[in-house]
Amino acid sequence: MTAEIIPHPASPAAPSLDALMALVAEDMHAVNAVILERMQSRIPLIPELAGHLIAGGGKRMRPMLALACAQMLDYPGSRQHLLAAAVEFIHTATLLHDDVVDGSDLRRGRPTANMVWNNSAAVLVGDFLFSRAFELMVEDGSLKVLRILSHASAVIAEGEVHQLSAQRKVTTDETQYLDIIDAKTAALFAASCRIAAVIAERDERTENALDTYGRNLGIAFQLVDDAIDYASDADTMGKGVGDDFRDGKVTLPVILAFARGDAAERTFWQAAMAGSRISDDDLAHAKLLLDRHDAIADTMERARLYARRAIDALGAFPVSAARDALVEAAQFAVARAY
Amino acid sequence: MTAEIIPHPASPAAPSLDALMALVAEDMHAVNAVILERMQSRIPLIPELAGHLIAGGGKRMRPMLALACAQMLDYPGSRQHLLAAAVEFIHTATLLHDDVVDGSDLRRGRPTANMVWNNSAAVLVGDFLFSRAFELMVEDGSLKVLRILSHASAVIAEGEVHQLSAQRKVTTDETQYLDIIDAKTAALFAASCRIAAVIAERDERTENALDTYGRNLGIAFQLVDDAIDYASDADTMGKGVGDDFRDGKVTLPVILAFARGDAAERTFWQAAMAGSRISDDDLAHAKLLLDRHDAIADTMERARLYARRAIDALGAFPVSAARDALVEAAQFAVARAY
Repeated sequence: MTAEIIPHPASPAAPSLDALMALVAEDMHAVNAVILERMQSRIPLIPELAGHLIAGGGKRMRPMLALACAQMLDYPGSRQHLLAAAVEFIHTATLLHDDVVDGSDLRRGRPTANMVWNNSAAVLVGDFLFSRAFELMVEDGSLKVLRILSHASAVIAEGEVHQLSAQRKVTTDETQYLDIIDAKTAALFAASCRIAAVIAERDERTENALDTYGRNLGIAFQLVDDAIDYASDADTMGKGVGDDFRDGKVTLPVILAFARGDAAERTFWQAAMAGSRISDDDLAHAKLLLDRHDAIADTMERARLYARRAIDALGAFPVSAARDALVEAAQFAVARAY
Repeated sequence: MTAEIIPHPASPAAPSLDALMALVAEDMHAVNAVILERMQSRIPLIPELAGHLIAGGGKRMRPMLALACAQMLDYPGSRQHLLAAAVEFIHTATLLHDDVVDGSDLRRGRPTANMVWNNSAAVLVGDFLFSRAFELMVEDGSLKVLRILSHASAVIAEGEVHQLSAQRKVTTDETQYLDIIDAKTAALFAASCRIAAVIAERDERTENALDTYGRNLGIAFQLVDDAIDYASDADTMGKGVGDDFRDGKVTLPVILAFARGDAAERTFWQAAMAGSRISDDDLAHAKLLLDRHDAIADTMERARLYARRAIDALGAFPVSAARDALVEAAQFAVARAY
């Protein structure tokens, strides 16, 4: 492994999310107010549990994208605030259920809601946030936005079930895996960007361009996350290195190494993903195999391809601070490691 | 306990759901076609798991109510088919998550999805059905229906979290308990009836009358379920007698017996609900205490009150076969036992 982590904050030349965050800072203030107000309930456990995750230091990437896209389109209104909050609620509900499904104990360096409370509470508060997201969309009143986000939600759930079906199956191929992360991760990135075009009343081409940007950015982010999991440490990422490995998550690095490995290596991967070879020594061996087959480097190469596609999708828009920030976000996605 | 179960099919004089089922049979055919078509997915686990529960012999009470209300209002269209399917998807999603939360192993006499597959699959397929429900509503295109059902969904989730917070707390009082079942059970009954008035384009008063009917019917059904749990056997109900007792579910019979009991009895209930006195002997003792304080009889009396309110809410509608069937459904709700 020749991997090294670029520390954050990065050197001035390195891409970061700073421009994006500065661009949407004022809007995000309004979004946060909606989030805080609408996660309230007369049942105290709901804001307590939801707040644990929502206040837990996530980047709010999807709301930021919706807000930046709205700015890039010179949308003059404020509907993006309610809708960005709805998107974040959908995302939060997904994370709550994800952590239950994966039995995760850490997210962003903090104990997960299912650990602090229990699985039941995490499932039910997720359901609440999901319903609340639809209430926000109804309040906004656009059937088109409702169509986009209800479809994205169904696709996400379908992707989660697909991933569950593929769990620990080391024979999952790259196409299947890309299909899973397209549904699980990229669909909501795409929808977050697309709805900006809807509220700005732009044409179908604009909608599609923003969808393409968001979708490819989402895949790039996920692939880099997959790579980082074999190189990061708990301090920098809020998740321990090798978490995916120990959970038997068949991610692209593993898929590539398995496909390129000999019989002995495949036997190792099968045992590892089945959960019977997950010691620190096994992880070290896994890294050696990943390195031997350039599996991390090639995962990053693919991530860069998707980031490049995301950036290209913005080519049709006039130069603006918002467009620059969105371009830099895609550069940042693949500059986080290696 | 002087309880006895009236066998089903009941004697001719006893109220049944037969009239309601006959009334909506043709409509229900269309609803079932929508349900079967829309629970499909290219991920095989989704229709497999959803089908297990959906084909598992539920009464489809909520769809039947929506269909019968639409008939009572002489609604001439077919929008109720899509929307009744959406309601059933919301209900099915709730059941899937409920069984995970309760760790239930049987529903309607069959193993639960979380037992046949696992908790993760049940959570995620529930999420899928929930999203699919919203896609169906969007396809229907009424923001008013979307508002009613997204609000009902949030209320249901809130009620579930409330119940979780009150879990095993024998000091839950009757008001709190009614609040929980109003949210958990009655809200979707109410919404199912209300949307019939929306698609038939009736006034607010009609909407409210149908909401009142459904809400009170839902509470009546739930209270009778609570009573039956202390008297039924697994063959007749698809759930074992004493399930609520063994799960530490604080239902109205327990709340009444606790409130009316002396110190020794309260100590018993506390231990029982905490899970430390749940043997067959303990259950027999619990039944004795319930009997001593008329807790089952009074639960049934309250159920009859709600059923009566449901029937009264239909008073403003002209006599029709649909109205008769809805009245009989409310009579049936409280005639199932005792």
